[in-house]
Amino acid sequence: MPAPAAVRVRLRLGYEGTDFHGWAAQPGQRTVQGVLEAALGTVLRIESPALTVAGRTDAGVHARGQVCHVDVPSTAWEQAPGRADREPGAALVHRLAGVLPPDLRVRDAEIAPPGFDARFSAVSRRYAYRVSDLPGGADPLLRRFVLAHDRILDAAAMNAASTGLLGEHDFAAFCRAREGATTIRALRTLHWERDTTGLLIATAEADAFCHNQVRAMVGALLAVGDGRRPIDWPATVLAAGVRDAAVTVAPAHGLTLEAVGYPPDDQLAERAAEARNVRSMPLSSD
Amino acid sequence: MPAPAAVRVRLRLGYEGTDFHGWAAQPGQRTVQGVLEAALGTVLRIESPALTVAGRTDAGVHARGQVCHVDVPSTAWEQAPGRADREPGAALVHRLAGVLPPDLRVRDAEIAPPGFDARFSAVSRRYAYRVSDLPGGADPLLRRFVLAHDRILDAAAMNAASTGLLGEHDFAAFCRAREGATTIRALRTLHWERDTTGLLIATAEADAFCHNQVRAMVGALLAVGDGRRPIDWPATVLAAGVRDAAVTVAPAHGLTLEAVGYPPDDQLAERAAEARNVRSMPLSSD
Repeated sequence: MPAPAAVRVRLRLGYEGTDFHGWAAQPGQRTVQGVLEAALGTVLRIESPALTVAGRTDAGVHARGQVCHVDVPSTAWEQAPGRADREPGAALVHRLAGVLPPDLRVRDAEIAPPGFDARFSAVSRRYAYRVSDLPGGADPLLRRFVLAHDRILDAAAMNAASTGLLGEHDFAAFCRAREGATTIRALRTLHWERDTTGLLIATAEADAFCHNQVRAMVGALLAVGDGRRPIDWPATVLAAGVRDAAVTVAPAHGLTLEAVGYPPDDQLAERAAEARNVRSMPLSSD
Repeated sequence: MPAPAAVRVRLRLGYEGTDFHGWAAQPGQRTVQGVLEAALGTVLRIESPALTVAGRTDAGVHARGQVCHVDVPSTAWEQAPGRADREPGAALVHRLAGVLPPDLRVRDAEIAPPGFDARFSAVSRRYAYRVSDLPGGADPLLRRFVLAHDRILDAAAMNAASTGLLGEHDFAAFCRAREGATTIRALRTLHWERDTTGLLIATAEADAFCHNQVRAMVGALLAVGDGRRPIDWPATVLAAGVRDAAVTVAPAHGLTLEAVGYPPDDQLAERAAEARNVRSMPLSSD
């Protein structure tokens, strides 16, 4: 929780991951956290703002509904420079729009409700994975966030296989191992749909995902979709419980973090405490 | 019409206009026509293929449903190298996908029906213009084909104003003048819709558009949408019949040629002859 003279600001943002080395700040690398912290420092005239994020994303992964928080002195928030007719949140969004590069946009900014923690209060993360199996390759306008797959995909087979992964399981088979980290997750949604243009879009939602999990599940499902593997193969891999070298992690650029879910305001603090306990196992957040 | 030993091939293609200096081949410039003609020459092993296009697009304008034709020796078509299990059109699409850059994709290729001319047989062109008025700017994933407008837009007002432009008129007020070229066009559709993400999309369809017409109409309608001009202003500009300096041409990158319409196969030749006569007035094609 922020110090008494500070306020916790919740930001919702989107970015194209192509030219970022992922979320987490790293010396000498262009990262979303690094660029956004620098912009906040400039606009709010504060030293070293420190962001906490709901879903750390890997290099090349995009986001639309990413959420993070930052604690800032309340004077900086209230005096956020901007047009006189804007309240502080809208003024901050406006100022950031002028400072941030076009591949990183802050959608809204507001004082977070009491007990809010962008990472630990979150109860769900929803990702989309987009694939084109059109002959000739992906639509040039969409190619930076759509995987071009060179064989025709059977969406019904991919949905049948996806059903076999739903529920609470140890997803170790689809996770990049981290020393001492649990890989138990509750996968609530995993389904594929073709939009009106023929684009195939997977929606995946869980309490949280372990590292590489969505891309590894997608890689396994693509193998089902183009007939290289039978429908029950992904569930068999899951049941084995160990990382399977036969599963190809799908490329980062097809993946977008679409939304992060939070409980009602009066349950934010409780949820954060609960998640912190579970994480002390420890559990990675994405 | 092609020589006896030649076949006319119809191609449907899409491109992101950002890094092209428009459609038309120009020495020393990267253009869609230049890149595609070079790729066809390589893949079909022919000298100087010459493309005819349905809708020449300006620098920065995108396309999804662009149509063009090229006359090639029938031997080149039939011997199109490719996997043995593909017919010539699919083999050509596959080969082109390997040679073309990712911002230019050929969707399909086939022998054109008799009498077909990509430019003169066309009876309609449909464009989309995409605008975001979200605070903080356009979605980073879509920003290359969406205009970021920094004031909130009233879609209902823009639709009311659009109605005043429908029908057959002399669109000189919205066209970049060309010596001796008619600017009479039949505007069949012009309407605005917000999609589920709040993106504002104009659909404009006409027999053909004169140069800069869609972007000039959009520029006038944006001024209505954000309250700078009254609803009847675009129709007043149209009625004046002369280029109005108060109309700002909207930026190229929001515009995409979505589709080209053709009559049934048995009317292709008749339509082409008719259009060629009209054009001898002469009339520009876009």
